[in-house]
Amino acid sequence: MKTYKYPNKTEWAELVNRPELKKEILNQQVEEILKEVKNKGDKALYNFSEKFDGVALNSLVVSQKEIIDSIKLVPEELKEAIKTAYANIERFHNNQLRVEKEVETTPGVRCWRKSVAIEKVGLYIPGGSAPLFSTILMLGIPAKIAACKEIVICTPPGKDGKINPAILFTAQLVGISTIYKVGGAQAIAAMAYGTESIPQVYKIFGPGNQYVTKAKSIIQQDGVAIDMPAGPSEVLILTDESSNPSFVAADLLSQAEHGADSQVILLSNQKNMIEKCLLELESQLSSLPREDTAREALRNSKAILLENTSQCMEFSNLYAPEHLIISTKNAMTLKDEITNAGSVFIGKYSCESAGDYASGTNHTLPTNGFAKSYSGVSVDSFVKKITFQEMTKQGLLNIGKTIELMAEAEKLIAHKNAVSIRLKEINND
Amino acid sequence: MKTYKYPNKTEWAELVNRPELKKEILNQQVEEILKEVKNKGDKALYNFSEKFDGVALNSLVVSQKEIIDSIKLVPEELKEAIKTAYANIERFHNNQLRVEKEVETTPGVRCWRKSVAIEKVGLYIPGGSAPLFSTILMLGIPAKIAACKEIVICTPPGKDGKINPAILFTAQLVGISTIYKVGGAQAIAAMAYGTESIPQVYKIFGPGNQYVTKAKSIIQQDGVAIDMPAGPSEVLILTDESSNPSFVAADLLSQAEHGADSQVILLSNQKNMIEKCLLELESQLSSLPREDTAREALRNSKAILLENTSQCMEFSNLYAPEHLIISTKNAMTLKDEITNAGSVFIGKYSCESAGDYASGTNHTLPTNGFAKSYSGVSVDSFVKKITFQEMTKQGLLNIGKTIELMAEAEKLIAHKNAVSIRLKEINND
Repeated sequence: MKTYKYPNKTEWAELVNRPELKKEILNQQVEEILKEVKNKGDKALYNFSEKFDGVALNSLVVSQKEIIDSIKLVPEELKEAIKTAYANIERFHNNQLRVEKEVETTPGVRCWRKSVAIEKVGLYIPGGSAPLFSTILMLGIPAKIAACKEIVICTPPGKDGKINPAILFTAQLVGISTIYKVGGAQAIAAMAYGTESIPQVYKIFGPGNQYVTKAKSIIQQDGVAIDMPAGPSEVLILTDESSNPSFVAADLLSQAEHGADSQVILLSNQKNMIEKCLLELESQLSSLPREDTAREALRNSKAILLENTSQCMEFSNLYAPEHLIISTKNAMTLKDEITNAGSVFIGKYSCESAGDYASGTNHTLPTNGFAKSYSGVSVDSFVKKITFQEMTKQGLLNIGKTIELMAEAEKLIAHKNAVSIRLKEINND
Repeated sequence: MKTYKYPNKTEWAELVNRPELKKEILNQQVEEILKEVKNKGDKALYNFSEKFDGVALNSLVVSQKEIIDSIKLVPEELKEAIKTAYANIERFHNNQLRVEKEVETTPGVRCWRKSVAIEKVGLYIPGGSAPLFSTILMLGIPAKIAACKEIVICTPPGKDGKINPAILFTAQLVGISTIYKVGGAQAIAAMAYGTESIPQVYKIFGPGNQYVTKAKSIIQQDGVAIDMPAGPSEVLILTDESSNPSFVAADLLSQAEHGADSQVILLSNQKNMIEKCLLELESQLSSLPREDTAREALRNSKAILLENTSQCMEFSNLYAPEHLIISTKNAMTLKDEITNAGSVFIGKYSCESAGDYASGTNHTLPTNGFAKSYSGVSVDSFVKKITFQEMTKQGLLNIGKTIELMAEAEKLIAHKNAVSIRLKEINND
C-alpha cells in the first residue's frame, strides 16, 4: 500500500483513479460464443461445457433429485446460518416495495404509478473454487418480493458435473427450482436469447469473470437489461484517532482477498493511525489462505493522510466507493455528508462482511466509481414502474387548450388534433 | 396499415416484432466524434458546429442576455400553457420522492436506505425543426425535485446561432441556467468527458437522432449512465365496440407523425371497429402537415382482430408498448392485467398527447419492447439509493457466527476474520 501525506487537492483526481483495466481483447471471442448459442442453442451449451468446464453433461437441468440429494450434504450449522441471513435480507428488502398514492394533477386528471414485476429474470451465480451461494440470497430474495414470475439460475458445473450443495440449498430456500448447469458467457447468451432448455429472460443479474461481464455488456446492447456495469470490488475506510487498527486492517483485507484487481483505500486525519493500520495489515496478511491475491490487490491500494475527517469525506465522495466504512467517533454526523457510495458501514462493529452476508442490505453494489450514478440491487431492480392516467371529460376540458398550444408550438399537429377532435365532440354534446 | 384477422398464437411472436432497425454503420463515425471532443475539447465543438449546424459560434454558452431577450419572444398564451403543464408534472413527480423507514433486521443491527441526488446530470434537448421544449419539463422537473446540484442542457443552435425561444423560456422556468449550444454526438461527448466550457456529468438524459443515440450507447460503456436505451416511438390502442373511431384514428396519427420509423398497433375484438378506424385514419391523414411521415410509419403498422379484450391485453403484454391506450368499456378492469407497458391511457378522453405534454406523467418512456424491463424517467432516475448499516456490539454478537460460517463456506477467510477479531475483543471485555 502506498502512503500519501496531505496530497494537494489538485492531485485528488489522480488518486481516485481506479487501476487501469486490461484492454479488452475478449470482444471477438465473446461475440462468437454468443452467436454460437444463438444459432445452435443447447447443442452449443453442451459443447462449451465440455470445452470450458471439462465435463460432458447428460442434461443442462438440475433435477429435483439432485437438489434433494445435495441438500443432505450441507452441514446443519451452515443451513441455519443461511436461514438467519435470509431472514435479515428479507426483512430489509420487504421495506422497499411501495404502493404510491394517486395524484389528481388537475380536476378530472388522475395519474398514478404502479410497480409491476419484471416477468422473467435470470440470475448468474459463479461457481468454481468459491461457490457464491450468498449471491442467490441477494438476488433471489428481492426477485421473490417483487413477485417475478419466472426466475432462473445459471451456474457452472464442476468437473464432476455437479453444482455445489450450498448453492442448491440456498436456491431451494429462496424458492427457485429452475437451475441450469451453464457458466460463462454462454450462460448469459442462453438467458438472453433462450435455448431449447433455457428460457429467454428480460433482465440478467449477477457477478462473473471477464467473459461473463463482457457478455452482459454485449447483450445489453441487444436490449436485454442487466443489473449494473461491472468492475473490481473496493472498500474505502475512514479512520481517526478512535479507530481500532486491527479491525481496520481486517476490513481492508476482507476486501483485498476478493481479487488481485480489488482496491482498498485507507483515509485518516492521523498519521499515527495509518502507521498502526499498516503494521496490523502486515501481521494479519501472512495467515490468510488468499495471501497472494490480497498482496496483489494491496499493490493497487492507497493510504492517504488528510487534514480532517471532513476532508476525508470530501475525498470519499470524489472516489465514490462501493463499500464505505466510517470508523470515526463522529461517524453519525459524517454520514450526512455522503453524496456517493454504494453501501455504508457506520461505527467500529459494522464490518463490511456483515453487509456481504447477513446484516440485511444487498451486496450487489456499484463499483469503479459507478456509485456516482447507480444504486445497488434492490427490489426496485426487479420491477418496472408503469404510469397511468385517466381523464374525464372535464379533465380534458381543463388541460385541452394547454396541450393544443404546446403541440402546435412543437409543430406536432396530429398531437394537437387528438385533443381538438375530442374537445369538439364534448362541446357539441 | 396491414390487417390481421384472428392470427394464431404461434404467429404472435412475429407480429410483436418491431421493424428491423438499420444496421448501424455509424459506429466508427461516432467513435471519431467522441475521440475528437475528448482530445480537443471546445475547439472540436466549435468545428463540429460549423460542420454540422452550419454556424460559426462565438461562444458555446447561452448568455443571460440571450435568455432574457428570447423569453420576450414567446407568446404569453404559450407561456401560460407551459406553466400549466409544469404544475401538473411537478405535482405528479413530487409524489415520487420517498423517505424509507429504518429496519432493525436483528436486535442491534439497523439498516436503512437513503435517496441521494446524482450530483451532475446532463439533459440533451433536440433542436431543429421541432423544438422539444416539453422534454425540458419532463427531464428538468424530476432533476430539480431530486435536488441534483448541477443540471446542464445541451441543445443544437440554428443556422443563426440561436436557440429556440420556447426552449430557453422553459429552461428558465424549471430553473436551469447552464445551457450550451451543442448538438449531436459531440454534445453527448462533451457532457461525458467535459471540455473547457462544458462540465462533465455522471448521467445523460434525453432523446436524439441516431448519432446521439449511438453516442449515448458508447459512453455508457465508459461508465457514464444514461436514462434508457433508445428506439422509435410507438403506441398500441385497444378497442371494442364502445370505442370512438375518430378518436382512435387521431391517436394513431399522433404517434405516426413522430417519425417514419414509428409504429402504431390497433387491436380490437370487433372487425367493424377496425374498419371504421382505418376509414377515419385515411380521412384525417390528408390534412396533416406531416402526412408523408405518418404514411411511412403506417406502412410498418398493424391492425389486429382478436377474439376478445382479454386476448388483446395478452397480446399487448407480449408487445410491451411504450404507450398503451385502453379505449374499451372495461378499461378499468383490463388495466389490472397489464404486465408490460411504459405509460397507460385509460378511457376515451385520455389521449396520448395529454401524457406527452400536460397530464403530469413523464413522456420519456421505454420503447422497442424495453418496457418489459425498463421504467420511464421519474425522480428515481435522478437519484441513487445508498444503503446504510450500523451494528452495536450486541448486534455483531447476534449475527457474528452466521457471517463466520457463511464466509468460511465461501472460502473467504479474511471476511470471516473481520468478524472473529471483533468477537474476540467483545468477549475479552
